[in-house]
Amino acid sequence: MIRTALTQWARVLMTSFADAGVEHVVISPGSRSTPFVLAAAREPRFICHDIIDERAAAFFALGQARRTGRPSLLLCTSGTAGAHYFPAIVEAAMSRVPLLVLTADRPNELQSCAAAQTIDQLKLFGGYARQFFDLGLPDPAPSALRALRRIVAQATFTSTWPSAGAVHLNARAKQPLEPMEPETRDEHALAHEVGSLLAEPLVSAFAPRMEPDPAAIGILARWALSAARPLIVCGPSPLAPRADELHRDALFDLARTLAAPVFCEAASNVRFVDAAAARGVLLCDAFDTFLRSPSFRANAQADLVLHLGAPPTSASWAAYAGGLRSARRIIFSEEGWNDPQNSAALHLFGSTRASLEALHRAMAPAPAPAREKPPGAWQELLCRANDIAWSIIDEDLARTTTMTEAAAVRAIVGALPIGSHLFLGNSLPIREVDTFCKGSHATARVLSQRGASGIDGLIAGAAGAASVGDSPMTLLLGDISFLHDVSSLLIARPLRASFVIAVLNNGGGRIFEQLPVASWPGIERAELAHLTTPHDRSTEHAAHLYGHPFERVASLPELSDALARAHARPGCTLLEVVVPPHGAHEQHSRIWETASAAVGRLVERFGPF
Amino acid sequence: MIRTALTQWARVLMTSFADAGVEHVVISPGSRSTPFVLAAAREPRFICHDIIDERAAAFFALGQARRTGRPSLLLCTSGTAGAHYFPAIVEAAMSRVPLLVLTADRPNELQSCAAAQTIDQLKLFGGYARQFFDLGLPDPAPSALRALRRIVAQATFTSTWPSAGAVHLNARAKQPLEPMEPETRDEHALAHEVGSLLAEPLVSAFAPRMEPDPAAIGILARWALSAARPLIVCGPSPLAPRADELHRDALFDLARTLAAPVFCEAASNVRFVDAAAARGVLLCDAFDTFLRSPSFRANAQADLVLHLGAPPTSASWAAYAGGLRSARRIIFSEEGWNDPQNSAALHLFGSTRASLEALHRAMAPAPAPAREKPPGAWQELLCRANDIAWSIIDEDLARTTTMTEAAAVRAIVGALPIGSHLFLGNSLPIREVDTFCKGSHATARVLSQRGASGIDGLIAGAAGAASVGDSPMTLLLGDISFLHDVSSLLIARPLRASFVIAVLNNGGGRIFEQLPVASWPGIERAELAHLTTPHDRSTEHAAHLYGHPFERVASLPELSDALARAHARPGCTLLEVVVPPHGAHEQHSRIWETASAAVGRLVERFGPF
Repeated sequence: MIRTALTQWARVLMTSFADAGVEHVVISPGSRSTPFVLAAAREPRFICHDIIDERAAAFFALGQARRTGRPSLLLCTSGTAGAHYFPAIVEAAMSRVPLLVLTADRPNELQSCAAAQTIDQLKLFGGYARQFFDLGLPDPAPSALRALRRIVAQATFTSTWPSAGAVHLNARAKQPLEPMEPETRDEHALAHEVGSLLAEPLVSAFAPRMEPDPAAIGILARWALSAARPLIVCGPSPLAPRADELHRDALFDLARTLAAPVFCEAASNVRFVDAAAARGVLLCDAFDTFLRSPSFRANAQADLVLHLGAPPTSASWAAYAGGLRSARRIIFSEEGWNDPQNSAALHLFGSTRASLEALHRAMAPAPAPAREKPPGAWQELLCRANDIAWSIIDEDLARTTTMTEAAAVRAIVGALPIGSHLFLGNSLPIREVDTFCKGSHATARVLSQRGASGIDGLIAGAAGAASVGDSPMTLLLGDISFLHDVSSLLIARPLRASFVIAVLNNGGGRIFEQLPVASWPGIERAELAHLTTPHDRSTEHAAHLYGHPFERVASLPELSDALARAHARPGCTLLEVVVPPHGAHEQHSRIWETASAAVGRLVERFGPF
Repeated sequence: MIRTALTQWARVLMTSFADAGVEHVVISPGSRSTPFVLAAAREPRFICHDIIDERAAAFFALGQARRTGRPSLLLCTSGTAGAHYFPAIVEAAMSRVPLLVLTADRPNELQSCAAAQTIDQLKLFGGYARQFFDLGLPDPAPSALRALRRIVAQATFTSTWPSAGAVHLNARAKQPLEPMEPETRDEHALAHEVGSLLAEPLVSAFAPRMEPDPAAIGILARWALSAARPLIVCGPSPLAPRADELHRDALFDLARTLAAPVFCEAASNVRFVDAAAARGVLLCDAFDTFLRSPSFRANAQADLVLHLGAPPTSASWAAYAGGLRSARRIIFSEEGWNDPQNSAALHLFGSTRASLEALHRAMAPAPAPAREKPPGAWQELLCRANDIAWSIIDEDLARTTTMTEAAAVRAIVGALPIGSHLFLGNSLPIREVDTFCKGSHATARVLSQRGASGIDGLIAGAAGAASVGDSPMTLLLGDISFLHDVSSLLIARPLRASFVIAVLNNGGGRIFEQLPVASWPGIERAELAHLTTPHDRSTEHAAHLYGHPFERVASLPELSDALARAHARPGCTLLEVVVPPHGAHEQHSRIWETASAAVGRLVERFGPF
């Protein structure tokens, strides 16, 4: 009987995770996880984060990985603890962000006999985990320890390839759970053996380069060269983290060669970019507005659409894409079949950058400025439609100096420090920024949770992303999202860089008022309340509860001043941006109607494409 | 094309749930669920609760069902929303509480193509749902509508039998999601047809009476009649809701006939009972303390143990049960193999009351007081051990008038209004009440989440239980549990009866300081912090955030006054009971050592059994 088997087992596990490149360990409290927690605490290469609520912990780890591209390790106790990871694990699977999950478990002898905090944790996350390993009880046999090291290498690798997502490891432990120093000869021998094993380098694994298929590139190049009205559309940032940083230049090169306008949604990381990098590229950042025009959608039809990233958030884009009569739509994808319209002509899988570069090369074997098409009527139409949309929006916003959601998101995005990060909540914020914020307003990296597009875990996710860097982070979210994840404010406490949480408080889930149901005949106010979830909670006490500085602003000058103070302050600041509960819907409708008419007239002048 | 198919489908669904006896519908916000939410709102027999956070919603529904024994219906939108139900669904499975879950879903055509808020919801909860139904898209065919009604009846039944737990229904809907009035002839015909269908009574289903096997009763009766040192032990309230209310009298009758002492843990619902009902029964409510004596455990061995409810929470009981050398242990169970010691002689499945009554009848075909054994040495030993334990505890508590955890839980339990409910948090509170609160202190019904025994969802669970009755509810929980579920304070707002949340604030997860790891050599303070999760958050701002009256008390007189005020007040009151972060462990150790010595001397006088 080797008393130190568990201690050494936990040591091999955690040392191997560090060897595999894991840097952040997110720990939630519990008893059964003690040996693994203490082994993690003793691994000097780890940065450990203690987070009480496992749900928040998982979104935090997801936010870290969304920014770093590398999996963080989640660590929790037995029982329902792991079940709280589930929403973030679903989002990890859908947005293809790597995650490692280690659930401590009780030995098999305690299963199925009503022992406390004992549930069946095998394959707890079903098909949402990319792989599942039951590590069983500690086994001091050399072959088992070596296998444990292999499993860690494999799990870490599998969390990123071939499809990034969560990998679940279930580690059983018997009491005593406390670390033991070797005493007997066998125990010293085991410690020595483990030392030798850990001195060996951990096996490494290399994913293949995802080069696009040359035959497909050939087809695409032919289509591209014959296209009269090409278009590139960039949805939310490619689902594989950091890929967008790598492909942007290749995208702009191709756009110039193709003379293709680029529809860049707010979450695409192609909108808020250096003007120099995008020189010569027509960035259409108002497409959500000018596509509201039925006339534009019917008469300004692209014949080639290159699609990057997740499907765009814009509803008017969906209407446009769904109504294209004879366009060839090409989906560039690192992973995922991204075509809710079911009308794509070709899916090109592989590294987006490699695909863009290959297409560019195939189109222009000897690239030279002379070969670039001059901007024709197609480009001109789109350029003007974009300008018209902005002038109508600008004019409408100038009509009043009072706070509106539109004005608030403009001010917030406009105040973003250069090189900072913007984390966009789902439902309203991502749509408001998409509609109202021009590309010239800032240079910031945008993060969003567009895998399952839930309103959940946004504070935790943004805090996680903020925890892995020194640049300022601004989270923009609605009041219902805020209330859904309010307890995650606790985990924003250790952050050192500026972390500004701007809550658009319109008194509850107002997006539903923009849905058709709100104006449906026969809907009563009490029934609508089940959908709009009105509430009267102020965020101020939430700030106090978690010890964060707080400001409530109800006017644009106040907002502007508060943003300046918040960005200058290290750590988390909570801003409650009070916007009228009603009026945004009317403003949107007004803008869309005006833009629709103006863009319609423009299209008439150009004649149908 | 019948435009009203979805409206009628949702109407059949919700009317049928009401026909099946569902009363409470717990709604979380979302868009895809609109048709079902509105159909629920229009069903006059439903009480609808709006809860933003699906995790809280699920624990709320669980708390309702734990008290009523009937399933509440959870209703949420598509995407990750349903995943938040998972922790409560696991607890429902483990504690066998019925639950109905309806997740709205998008049509198949939107699956697997990166459409927003679209995930694979089929069998989302894996083996933790008792049954899964994909309802598919609305189908106006008469056979399909009739099947829908059958499915609702079946799902509701299956949530309670043969093993209570969650049943998951996934309902797909296409836009438009708004309710439609019939216009065409076909649509009027459909409405008429649905009306006729709904006028038919819903099929009902009857579970069998769970009568114990007569052969087993025969064996048991022989064992019981020959037992010299019988014992009945009651763990946390039988997992099937309300069963304990039904079996208590049968239990006391049997205990009197058997002359068996009854070890009643705090969560058993056999401790805080009318003295009259338990007359002539030796209720050992200090067994957790006197079983700390190794001498007692070794030399006061029962030879027959009848076990009711879940395995007791007490660690000293586990040591005692595990060390019994030749006792016959019999597990009475409605459901579940409740024997973590793996040493039971016989599992008797069936209604606990029926089993107790059958055994009683088999032992005493003509029951008469004369047949009852006089209390012998065995009863006397246990009676004295129980008295000694209390006198040592009382004396220790009398040594100081300052607040201790022990004194606080005594005051809180002592102040419970007659006929009220006490909801016990896991980790410390359930153990503190078990150790320190005498049976005579109150007559209250105790609720606990002892399925998976997590620290999660306690505020929501207690609020749910409070929402289905008018009697006062007191929730006793630790500060980490409180922080884990703090956002559920929002859902306590509509409660009308007195709902007192007493938070024992010792500055963070102190139970870990009572575990061996805390005193283990070589554990550093920083490492321990990963386990004890110290924090500096006051609950006061949480109360303000959610608009609940708040009091912080640090002395016993203050606590007593605050409890009186809180019980007199309708709705939720938050009490922060500040207890020293250290000292409880020392107090426990001191009491257990003193009791161990005194009980050891007692056992010596009696000689070994």
